[in-house]
Amino acid sequence: MTKIPVWMDCDTGTDDAVAIMLAHKLPELEILGISAVCGNTIQDNAYWNTHRINALMGTDYPVYRGAEKPMVIPLVTAAYVHGENGLGDVELPLPEGVAEQKESAWDALYACARAHPGELRLVPTGPLTNIAIAFTKYPDLPKLLHSITLMGGSAGPGNITPAAEFNIYADPQAADIVFRCGAPIVMCGLDVTTQAYFEMEDLDELAASGKSAGTFVKAILMHSYAVLAKYGVKGFCMHDSCPVMYLAHPELFEGEEAGVVVETRGSFTSGKTITDLYSDKQFPFTNALVILKVDREKFIALLKDAIQSI
Amino acid sequence: MTKIPVWMDCDTGTDDAVAIMLAHKLPELEILGISAVCGNTIQDNAYWNTHRINALMGTDYPVYRGAEKPMVIPLVTAAYVHGENGLGDVELPLPEGVAEQKESAWDALYACARAHPGELRLVPTGPLTNIAIAFTKYPDLPKLLHSITLMGGSAGPGNITPAAEFNIYADPQAADIVFRCGAPIVMCGLDVTTQAYFEMEDLDELAASGKSAGTFVKAILMHSYAVLAKYGVKGFCMHDSCPVMYLAHPELFEGEEAGVVVETRGSFTSGKTITDLYSDKQFPFTNALVILKVDREKFIALLKDAIQSI
Amino acid sequence: MTKIPVWMDCDTGTDDAVAIMLAHKLPELEILGISAVCGNTIQDNAYWNTHRINALMGTDYPVYRGAEKPMVIPLVTAAYVHGENGLGDVELPLPEGVAEQKESAWDALYACARAHPGELRLVPTGPLTNIAIAFTKYPDLPKLLHSITLMGGSAGPGNITPAAEFNIYADPQAADIVFRCGAPIVMCGLDVTTQAYFEMEDLDELAASGKSAGTFVKAILMHSYAVLAKYGVKGFCMHDSCPVMYLAHPELFEGEEAGVVVETRGSFTSGKTITDLYSDKQFPFTNALVILKVDREKFIALLKDAIQSI
Amino acid sequence: MTKIPVWMDCDTGTDDAVAIMLAHKLPELEILGISAVCGNTIQDNAYWNTHRINALMGTDYPVYRGAEKPMVIPLVTAAYVHGENGLGDVELPLPEGVAEQKESAWDALYACARAHPGELRLVPTGPLTNIAIAFTKYPDLPKLLHSITLMGGSAGPGNITPAAEFNIYADPQAADIVFRCGAPIVMCGLDVTTQAYFEMEDLDELAASGKSAGTFVKAILMHSYAVLAKYGVKGFCMHDSCPVMYLAHPELFEGEEAGVVVETRGSFTSGKTITDLYSDKQFPFTNALVILKVDREKFIALLKDAIQSI
Repeated sequence: MTKIPVWMDCDTGTDDAVAIMLAHKLPELEILGISAVCGNTIQDNAYWNTHRINALMGTDYPVYRGAEKPMVIPLVTAAYVHGENGLGDVELPLPEGVAEQKESAWDALYACARAHPGELRLVPTGPLTNIAIAFTKYPDLPKLLHSITLMGGSAGPGNITPAAEFNIYADPQAADIVFRCGAPIVMCGLDVTTQAYFEMEDLDELAASGKSAGTFVKAILMHSYAVLAKYGVKGFCMHDSCPVMYLAHPELFEGEEAGVVVETRGSFTSGKTITDLYSDKQFPFTNALVILKVDREKFIALLKDAIQSI
Repeated sequence: MTKIPVWMDCDTGTDDAVAIMLAHKLPELEILGISAVCGNTIQDNAYWNTHRINALMGTDYPVYRGAEKPMVIPLVTAAYVHGENGLGDVELPLPEGVAEQKESAWDALYACARAHPGELRLVPTGPLTNIAIAFTKYPDLPKLLHSITLMGGSAGPGNITPAAEFNIYADPQAADIVFRCGAPIVMCGLDVTTQAYFEMEDLDELAASGKSAGTFVKAILMHSYAVLAKYGVKGFCMHDSCPVMYLAHPELFEGEEAGVVVETRGSFTSGKTITDLYSDKQFPFTNALVILKVDREKFIALLKDAIQSI
Repeated sequence: MTKIPVWMDCDTGTDDAVAIMLAHKLPELEILGISAVCGNTIQDNAYWNTHRINALMGTDYPVYRGAEKPMVIPLVTAAYVHGENGLGDVELPLPEGVAEQKESAWDALYACARAHPGELRLVPTGPLTNIAIAFTKYPDLPKLLHSITLMGGSAGPGNITPAAEFNIYADPQAADIVFRCGAPIVMCGLDVTTQAYFEMEDLDELAASGKSAGTFVKAILMHSYAVLAKYGVKGFCMHDSCPVMYLAHPELFEGEEAGVVVETRGSFTSGKTITDLYSDKQFPFTNALVILKVDREKFIALLKDAIQSI
Repeated sequence: MTKIPVWMDCDTGTDDAVAIMLAHKLPELEILGISAVCGNTIQDNAYWNTHRINALMGTDYPVYRGAEKPMVIPLVTAAYVHGENGLGDVELPLPEGVAEQKESAWDALYACARAHPGELRLVPTGPLTNIAIAFTKYPDLPKLLHSITLMGGSAGPGNITPAAEFNIYADPQAADIVFRCGAPIVMCGLDVTTQAYFEMEDLDELAASGKSAGTFVKAILMHSYAVLAKYGVKGFCMHDSCPVMYLAHPELFEGEEAGVVVETRGSFTSGKTITDLYSDKQFPFTNALVILKVDREKFIALLKDAIQSI
């Protein structure tokens, strides 16, 4: 079996970490590189957290540094959810003797895309700053990609504001560039990712397995438990695992082709993904497959399997 | 029983006409005046259509002319839904000897509010231009009103654009003024009004009753049948009857207090009502009761009764 | 000689008062009505200040109340220049037995324009709120006017912000409507009005004449002396007299036809009049004669004559 | 004498070429690197044109490739002024055996700034895309620079639109980042650069000198002669030579400290540099020295000397 080549671009916080584990263990996928971007946490945390996950998994996927700030607006992180260190303030030792890459995120991504023309699946799970910088520097990059399967946006309400989801809100100008890039986009937004949640008993089960990965995953997710409880959220949404799972198991998902644009100028709507899902399509184009539904039971079973096998 | 004093402000198209009939027949309500605004159709049509409904009902509610254009942006009508004449291109003769009012919509509304301080329920079923002009001219008007129960907006997707509902889209600057005015607002947006629909058999029943009002209602609504069918909509939404019904029968509705703001500047979101419905309230205020649900069966039964009794 | 019929719309502060005096005394002009708008001061002050000027001049020009707030944005006044009462905090007794008009500014203006089709010169010297409401209510009004000769805007820098002049900044949505209305516009902006200034010796001369009007003019202008001195301004700009003088003595002015648009959405430029004065015209239209120069000596001589003859 | 270390960032069109020659010949300055950006022409042209100027001058300044697109908005070039090839469609052979740099503009600029902390003068003569990408990637870069002396913006009217100058208009988001970066900025905008023009007799003199550089400069500038004549412009503005000359001969210039912001959201004003030059400073900061005047005679004499000595 030929594996599907995947490039991940992560602001490695808690659910990004889980998504990387999933991508590592799904037999259908092969990670070719991981780039770090600011978002849930600062880029330096995202970078070193990715190395920590590498160490936990016993892998050495190459990790590249990307943007330290959004393209235009100031940096906003989500430390209130992901902790100051991005991993729920769980201390995982820095691996020694890490091979640091000298190439930037955009240069490395471009080189990888050229080496696999038409094949590379780009999986951004954070703000789209690195991707937009790459597209700005290499205008032919969108055409070299197979597709972009991303966590971000919402056809309905937002989370960071009533209108906008965090990843798009954090760099709307970059998101605007990516949604207009011409490459096929699969948008795993809040519409689907809020259906893809662990319940507490799932976390208990992971921790009970006695494996370090399971224990680690419960620990980092428990950090946000108090925050989530305060907001009346009952589960632990595995947002960033959705695009990874979609690449290996699209049959678990349902979606709809739609036109999606990013608002960059509104007073109250900056970062909103306006999604034209209706039967009387009003935008004169479709540029994304908007995922709306997931088979939660199968999704969670596969995700637990992956984590427990590390 | 003391009746609830109501002022209606309508861009009298098809479902505005039904809403006026409902307000006339609900024994709990008393119409003190009706002002005409541009929206579904031009103001002149809205004005004369209201007189036509008066004649059909055998009433002489005073009708006042209001704005012929939105406050800032150019006029957009909805002739593709409401017909060129606003009443589904059904010809209803102009009544003779109509008493035309000389006062403008805003002057008459203000006089009425001063005559019933703290009591008047304002029911706008079109764009909010007249109301905003009244608030601009008479800054003390919001405090004189009991409340504003309006058809407009959406906590979810729009209809005229993927982001915005028609009444708000048609005059976002006016809507912005109204949502910031300080008077209590009940927002009957697409969230609830799309649940308040006639089915074809309801229209058949109305027409079969042999009463002129029932026949008329079926005729004006059938105009939009082809349009709706094309878009896959199955019922005939009685959007504008929702705020009227709410005033007499709030027990049929469910809603939630929320902060609502109107986007006036976005590239793709102009006219969107951003609605902060979530448990972790992000706007530092609530200014509206956002209606989310209606008991359709009881709603439709009461509405059919009203029409058939004319 | 047939006099030129003029309608003035004023936020009667200090230099508006002088402009009304000038319009009264110039033999070429005939004031048909004056409407009051919020701007330099609140509308109620503007309204009563206009009556005070009437009394000072021994005239009874009809005065109409207009808007108390801008169309969309909140009210900003210029009390720091014009004083709390709008007349430099000089106390002028309220005339007794004033005939108050019941018609609104917009209704009265419209009636007047219809009575003099194609003849009426509209002279706004404050924010354009009343005019825009009139155009919103009466879409045929622009075609009924001869022209609009206004004080407002700037082809160069602003005064209330680095980009915008006060009258346009105070209600940019209204200004946008007026500049797109189709009637011929003569724009007397800061470009010319900063050339039309009294020096201190001019004020001394006015006061020395022993006439009450001269004494009054010096008194109201001295209020802003400290403010102007602080900003390094040496003269007392008679901004609002410019459009009045232009109607009677266009030969004192030089200008250029240009396209002018009003920025209503910028972050830093709201209320700026973008003026396409250059040889390679970039806007595909010209909608205004932008006045750029005035013969100051003749202007001031005529203005002093007018004031001293009251 | 220790030379002043200079980094140039150019969209090498006609007057950029002249600016590079000037920087090369002024004995006070030393060019450490030149980066190419899209602007007057596409980046590939800017890159190779810079190599061509290197060849013409017999130098081998390192040249780095930068952005091929603005940060957010689509690319707009100025081929109508600078010709399709950016050098007035004058054919200058591509030098052979050019040493191509592998580093990107931003990486090379950062390395250079680190090697000369607090010393490097950055001289952008095109859109600020490369600089903003560098600041996004390396947030500590602004503090490493001595200053940024740029050609761009205007305290008065624009050239590409009535409101905006080309370099800022072409990438307003990048300009916004640069003007807010914290490093000292000297802004040579249209205010001064329109005073820094060659007349036809200057070009004749350059060509008559018999040197290839002089002949070349006349040839590339003559391309725009027809364009300029059409617009009534009489001279050949050497916009991009202004910041270069300023670094060596600040005594030829006059300016004023001011707050400058870039409008990125306006409908008609995108790319305008709003400049708070007035005595009653309204912006609560000053972030730029805005150059307003140049001694044209001395400027042109020095510039001709430089070109003729190549």
